[in-house]
Amino acid sequence: MSVTTEREIDTGTAYGLKPRSYKVELVEVGPGTPMGELMRRYWQPFAVSKDLTSEKPHKVRLLGENLIAFRDKQGRLGLVHENCCHRGSSLYFGRVEEDGIRCCYHGWKFDVKGYCLDQPAEVDGGRNRAKIRQPWYPVEERYGLAYAYMGPPEKKPVLPRWEHLENLEEDEHIEILWNTIFGTRDVEPYNPLHFNWLQAFENTMDSPHLPWLHYWHSCDQFTGLPLLRVDGDDDKLPPYAHIKNLAGQIVAARTELGVKQGVPMPVPGQGIFLASNEAMVPNIAVVASLIDLMYFVPQSDTSFLNFILKRAKKGQTFDNFNEMHFGKTWWEMTEEEHRASPGDFEAQSSIGQLPAHNYEHLSQGDVAIGLLRRRLEEAVRDVQEGRDPVGVQFEADAPPLRIGAHDMIPWNDAA
Amino acid sequence: MSVTTEREIDTGTAYGLKPRSYKVELVEVGPGTPMGELMRRYWQPFAVSKDLTSEKPHKVRLLGENLIAFRDKQGRLGLVHENCCHRGSSLYFGRVEEDGIRCCYHGWKFDVKGYCLDQPAEVDGGRNRAKIRQPWYPVEERYGLAYAYMGPPEKKPVLPRWEHLENLEEDEHIEILWNTIFGTRDVEPYNPLHFNWLQAFENTMDSPHLPWLHYWHSCDQFTGLPLLRVDGDDDKLPPYAHIKNLAGQIVAARTELGVKQGVPMPVPGQGIFLASNEAMVPNIAVVASLIDLMYFVPQSDTSFLNFILKRAKKGQTFDNFNEMHFGKTWWEMTEEEHRASPGDFEAQSSIGQLPAHNYEHLSQGDVAIGLLRRRLEEAVRDVQEGRDPVGVQFEADAPPLRIGAHDMIPWNDAA
Amino acid sequence: MSVTTEREIDTGTAYGLKPRSYKVELVEVGPGTPMGELMRRYWQPFAVSKDLTSEKPHKVRLLGENLIAFRDKQGRLGLVHENCCHRGSSLYFGRVEEDGIRCCYHGWKFDVKGYCLDQPAEVDGGRNRAKIRQPWYPVEERYGLAYAYMGPPEKKPVLPRWEHLENLEEDEHIEILWNTIFGTRDVEPYNPLHFNWLQAFENTMDSPHLPWLHYWHSCDQFTGLPLLRVDGDDDKLPPYAHIKNLAGQIVAARTELGVKQGVPMPVPGQGIFLASNEAMVPNIAVVASLIDLMYFVPQSDTSFLNFILKRAKKGQTFDNFNEMHFGKTWWEMTEEEHRASPGDFEAQSSIGQLPAHNYEHLSQGDVAIGLLRRRLEEAVRDVQEGRDPVGVQFEADAPPLRIGAHDMIPWNDAA
Repeated sequence: MSVTTEREIDTGTAYGLKPRSYKVELVEVGPGTPMGELMRRYWQPFAVSKDLTSEKPHKVRLLGENLIAFRDKQGRLGLVHENCCHRGSSLYFGRVEEDGIRCCYHGWKFDVKGYCLDQPAEVDGGRNRAKIRQPWYPVEERYGLAYAYMGPPEKKPVLPRWEHLENLEEDEHIEILWNTIFGTRDVEPYNPLHFNWLQAFENTMDSPHLPWLHYWHSCDQFTGLPLLRVDGDDDKLPPYAHIKNLAGQIVAARTELGVKQGVPMPVPGQGIFLASNEAMVPNIAVVASLIDLMYFVPQSDTSFLNFILKRAKKGQTFDNFNEMHFGKTWWEMTEEEHRASPGDFEAQSSIGQLPAHNYEHLSQGDVAIGLLRRRLEEAVRDVQEGRDPVGVQFEADAPPLRIGAHDMIPWNDAA
Repeated sequence: MSVTTEREIDTGTAYGLKPRSYKVELVEVGPGTPMGELMRRYWQPFAVSKDLTSEKPHKVRLLGENLIAFRDKQGRLGLVHENCCHRGSSLYFGRVEEDGIRCCYHGWKFDVKGYCLDQPAEVDGGRNRAKIRQPWYPVEERYGLAYAYMGPPEKKPVLPRWEHLENLEEDEHIEILWNTIFGTRDVEPYNPLHFNWLQAFENTMDSPHLPWLHYWHSCDQFTGLPLLRVDGDDDKLPPYAHIKNLAGQIVAARTELGVKQGVPMPVPGQGIFLASNEAMVPNIAVVASLIDLMYFVPQSDTSFLNFILKRAKKGQTFDNFNEMHFGKTWWEMTEEEHRASPGDFEAQSSIGQLPAHNYEHLSQGDVAIGLLRRRLEEAVRDVQEGRDPVGVQFEADAPPLRIGAHDMIPWNDAA
Repeated sequence: MSVTTEREIDTGTAYGLKPRSYKVELVEVGPGTPMGELMRRYWQPFAVSKDLTSEKPHKVRLLGENLIAFRDKQGRLGLVHENCCHRGSSLYFGRVEEDGIRCCYHGWKFDVKGYCLDQPAEVDGGRNRAKIRQPWYPVEERYGLAYAYMGPPEKKPVLPRWEHLENLEEDEHIEILWNTIFGTRDVEPYNPLHFNWLQAFENTMDSPHLPWLHYWHSCDQFTGLPLLRVDGDDDKLPPYAHIKNLAGQIVAARTELGVKQGVPMPVPGQGIFLASNEAMVPNIAVVASLIDLMYFVPQSDTSFLNFILKRAKKGQTFDNFNEMHFGKTWWEMTEEEHRASPGDFEAQSSIGQLPAHNYEHLSQGDVAIGLLRRRLEEAVRDVQEGRDPVGVQFEADAPPLRIGAHDMIPWNDAA
């Protein structure tokens, strides 16, 4: 037998680590949840307008609810509960007609506001049909998107205009960009990514990941984006590769509608420029110079998709958004290629289907994320305590909303 | 700033809609549930007799329980709990012998009543084996089907005969029809449909769906069924297409064993005929002129299948049950074809895996469904309060049961 | 009406059978569970050392925890929590460097003990990084395997040596055998079998299954294993086929580290030999003559894998472990072939993902399994009551552990 010697005790091991948990009030979006109720105070985009043809009904999954969108043959758009209020069959198998949609099972017809127009087998087409209504949501269309208002009827705001998307020149239009990471758009409901929306939304306030993930780790993933590069100066680092002490240089602040943060990018021969993004309550972002509006729309607690708008000139193309990696779309890449060049999808989705906030250690580089979370928590509390959340307008002639983010501007350390 | 104008407040939106819920006492079928206990008072068919060969054990899933059926080499049929009572291996991997089934793991052999006949590695083949018994259920065979009794032993009824299936002529037999929507039958347990049994059972009391779903919506899906058509009169509507005011013409009534309902069908040149169906407690239906007995057998709360019996003449074929759509079986049809011509499967399955009774709005056309639900609830209550439910017979020489439905008969509005 | 006759009441039916349940304290392995805490007092193998290259991080799933193993470019091995402690991205997409692993999202670098070495975007690479630590576990390597200690740091034992694996001759080495039932090893985490570890571990104490499952039921599955056969005597039964009264001949006893059991095997012309296995607390077995150490390592409550060690001579091959059935690997066999020749996989997995201890009826042939369960329960209680469980050593120069099982030895009934 040997003598027991003093042993060094390990510290910091994973033994006793608590199970994952997250801030419920920021993450969950179903009916009655704090964030779900906040999101329901705003018009949420659910489809690209031109996808909503009159030929067939369209499946929509939004904030944990299953809905059916249809455009009647007169062109009016409707969004109703998926299950027919008669006996529950899905209106996905319904038929779109001149003035409404008919359920396949017994032919009850509803208009875009859910009113029951016909019950073919009932006496006189349904003597009591006026009492029947398919649960519905108000919809409007603007900037090429279809929006729904899913909140309390008495709180319905006007669908906002955005100053930077108005007053288009003759050769301008609003382009809708589809994030190719989501795959093709020809599915119903649209292909979502299967993790929580917040993990993606916060990425817009995360400048440090830009140089690390997209340049130093994964070998210059933004070759297709001219604004993050120096033209004619290919042998130098692109501006977005600047990383040293970056966290200390971030400029972050509250804006009227949310939070903005700016990050310096040194452009060789031209000095340092500041590019800023804005994240607005509850789920809209602006990515300076690249994206004019970007919605992070949850289909459920663990799935979401983006609708992206950009003011564009006639003939302007956006191939950079369809960029290939290894000559493949994201979903064609092999596991090894994903590991060799992880991108936003890998970084965000590998957190898990839901975040683990209790494991996080936010640092100075996360300053804008911290601000955004507080801003969201405030807005959640506003709704809970009976106040209208930020950015909601009720006047029919309300002025367009104004974003706080700006394009790349000259910058110095004192800024 | 503009002045806030009076705004119209939306009504009837889906905001605040309660989560889906269903009548538990009608829907769930597991051990100890109200409907599960009702169903366990009746013999339930679980297989086509001729499928139960002696070559191998057969997987059976019935009322939420996992079972193994086997026919010993002497031809006796057994139905036992899937997991061997020794150490739990599935008897699916067992070996069928002259007088029982052996577990693959240690070779314990059980007969059709679960008695342990051998424990090969135990001393003297198992000195205590008389105390061991594999949980089993009584089985009987009739009309080409194998039935199990899964209820309290002291309540075991006799396996009923049916008047309309007895006293066969020399050239008659009972044909077993397989619903091709379930796919092929060569799987164990049989391919079920994956939604609640009640959604399908209620369809037999649903006359309004006949003209709408199968004719006006999906373009005459019953071309293969002569009884619903007018021979030599193809340019006219088939009788089953009659829909106007149909709900007011339905004749629905309690029968001895359940509920029947009749619906008028105008046959050009011959007047109006009434065809009636019957739904019997707890899960059997008759579809006049087409199906003599149709069992809706739950494998679980969210899966079920049908066994269909028809009195048939020698050489009579039933190709109508194997009807193709778009020249394909149901499962070969594309999504677009299913949407273009939805049938019973789409209408019923799209309600969801479980019904949403709290969303329903039953109307006059649902009169027989309402009656059926009440009849089922009564029977559930009978069992809960210690009474024998309807149709259960205990006398060895009990008379055959008599159905209440009838074939197409002449009818007028006064009927 | 007929007179009701006295009817025989069935007994032993499955009506009223309770739902499945299992001994929680033996089965579940997650953090804080009784067995999970017992297992965490021992070093657990999680990978074959040579699989742990420095090229990429490796996914490890162990006792319900998601971990990442990496070998830095200096060759040091680390095992850390999967999610980066900064913002939670998986280190599976990380980059292995000279002295640690970097997260793909923001480049934080951790060494093999979880210390944070760099935060590239933070000021001065992270002024507060000393306070940050990625949760980690101590690892060691021996006999070709990598082991982790996942228990309370103050209870960390020394990684044991095993007497029968030490003092190798010059032409000897420790061979690592991979159970081909698990499929190939080139996946991360390794392919597990998807049922509870205990169902497999107990199999090592289950002698009666040997003659039944592997010979009488499934037609001599051990043709590839010479030790269970009689050379040059192919027309006789192999020794392991002996089954009659076997349960009465089992010799079972507690050993220092667990339980051993021996079973007689008659070798024609040579008499009867006794071959014994040992199952050691908490999850290690010895299979006499065949396997020197066999770990049953849970990935979760419902998945596990084996690491198998064997002292071997240079050039010795172990094709018997890669035996084909029907000329196929286990996963290439058809359903019918699996049913015709079920093996350990079918017998154990078909119990279910978790055992149903409340359905079992242990018999004399299960004597060693009963002993093993009691031994495991004792060890669980030891930990719960503050005692060190059996076989745990704390002295740096602790002597090698000694197994109790032995090779085939001559035996007679009086033994």
